[in-house]
Amino acid sequence: VLRFHADRVESFQDTLVAEIPFTVQLNGEELVTILCTPEHLLELAVGYLYSEGFIGNKEDILDLGLDRAGPSALVTTRLSVNARDLYEKRKRLITPGCIDAAGIQAPGPDARPLGAEQASLTVRAADIRKALREVNGFAELYRRTGGVHNAALCAGPAVLFFSEDIGRHNALDKVVGRSLLAGIPLDDKTVITSGRISSPVVMKMTRAGAPVLVSRSAPTSEAVRLAEAFGLTLIGFARGSRFNVYSNGWRVERT
Amino acid sequence: VLRFHADRVESFQDTLVAEIPFTVQLNGEELVTILCTPEHLLELAVGYLYSEGFIGNKEDILDLGLDRAGPSALVTTRLSVNARDLYEKRKRLITPGCIDAAGIQAPGPDARPLGAEQASLTVRAADIRKALREVNGFAELYRRTGGVHNAALCAGPAVLFFSEDIGRHNALDKVVGRSLLAGIPLDDKTVITSGRISSPVVMKMTRAGAPVLVSRSAPTSEAVRLAEAFGLTLIGFARGSRFNVYSNGWRVERT
Repeated sequence: VLRFHADRVESFQDTLVAEIPFTVQLNGEELVTILCTPEHLLELAVGYLYSEGFIGNKEDILDLGLDRAGPSALVTTRLSVNARDLYEKRKRLITPGCIDAAGIQAPGPDARPLGAEQASLTVRAADIRKALREVNGFAELYRRTGGVHNAALCAGPAVLFFSEDIGRHNALDKVVGRSLLAGIPLDDKTVITSGRISSPVVMKMTRAGAPVLVSRSAPTSEAVRLAEAFGLTLIGFARGSRFNVYSNGWRVERT
Repeated sequence: VLRFHADRVESFQDTLVAEIPFTVQLNGEELVTILCTPEHLLELAVGYLYSEGFIGNKEDILDLGLDRAGPSALVTTRLSVNARDLYEKRKRLITPGCIDAAGIQAPGPDARPLGAEQASLTVRAADIRKALREVNGFAELYRRTGGVHNAALCAGPAVLFFSEDIGRHNALDKVVGRSLLAGIPLDDKTVITSGRISSPVVMKMTRAGAPVLVSRSAPTSEAVRLAEAFGLTLIGFARGSRFNVYSNGWRVERT
């Protein structure tokens, strides 16, 4: 790589983020190929299946394996009536151009507001700041390449899982997948992400049951509207010790 | 919005980036719905159709209209044999989960290396820096919300068109669409974007014929490999007067 400075050019060796096609085989059929960063692939497969409505819980997974050669995930599931219906519907769907981060809408699973479990849960501002510092520490470690998003699963101030991916949706799916695989309920957890918050991200998080979503970037207007309606506490522009609370601010204790 | 500082909480009015579903109707049928920022919608529709292989040039568009109510674009095209084939193939395609920036691969149009037109074209480092400064100036103007990507079409040091969108692919499609609609060939132009460069972005740009792609973010390993093979000069981490040249560096004149 040639680095051009204002007054000189130097040559150096750069580290690039890997990008691989990863295929999810569902019950013997190729379901989808995802461009992603080759880490936490099982978490990605499981999180993807959950986020898209193909499974509703860990018990729906009858068998799960990873073929490193593909790489691909081989998943056998208990197909509920809903999932089967979804699967058929999608086969008939026209959704061209879903290449890597285009803003294409496909009929996903039904949106799901948060329930009674999260109705009284609060989170301390000090804990959010502490978790953010820890996540930034992890991100520093990984910041060789600059080209990735990350997402973290946090219990109060503690970071339980940290993922990164070239796709912001993938990074979040890895968190959802880890929570399912490890049996860690999201009901009382905080999810921190580096990515922008659009309405599909809010749908993904409320579906998974996470009551607090923190981003270092901005939310869209539609994301804030949905988060308000669905009971999610949406926090954006979390940088240093500052952050903005866009919805359900009652959940954030000021101490 | 509540802004939490280290030592106090203030309430303020924030400006959020708009996010709308925009439908492209192709020859009377609904082709796709794209989540996007409601600016330059005609450019987005045309750029999308080109990038996805439904049109090959401006002449393929027989009629083009915008229904502001939807909003949707109503496009009538001359369907070449290839486009018809593509259209049919996609109808039979399973591509679930293409919601907003997931890294899903769908069979797009054939990748297309740059041709003879761009084989001897060079660009001056000083012009790249000048164009970057101008693009940053535009971005400042628009930086009320923080939640958008942008892309610009540049002739040497001059910025001819500036677009922004919540999706990095959308911002680039708007540039491609503008170039087609305004009859500005991309063969000798530089495209500047804020977004990360993955392999589909490289495919989109070489297909459109742009020989130089500059990003303020990082490229992936696969993007660099493709750019090298397809003749594209790929520049990343363009910040201030520094930038890194990842492929086909012969095209960058050091003055």
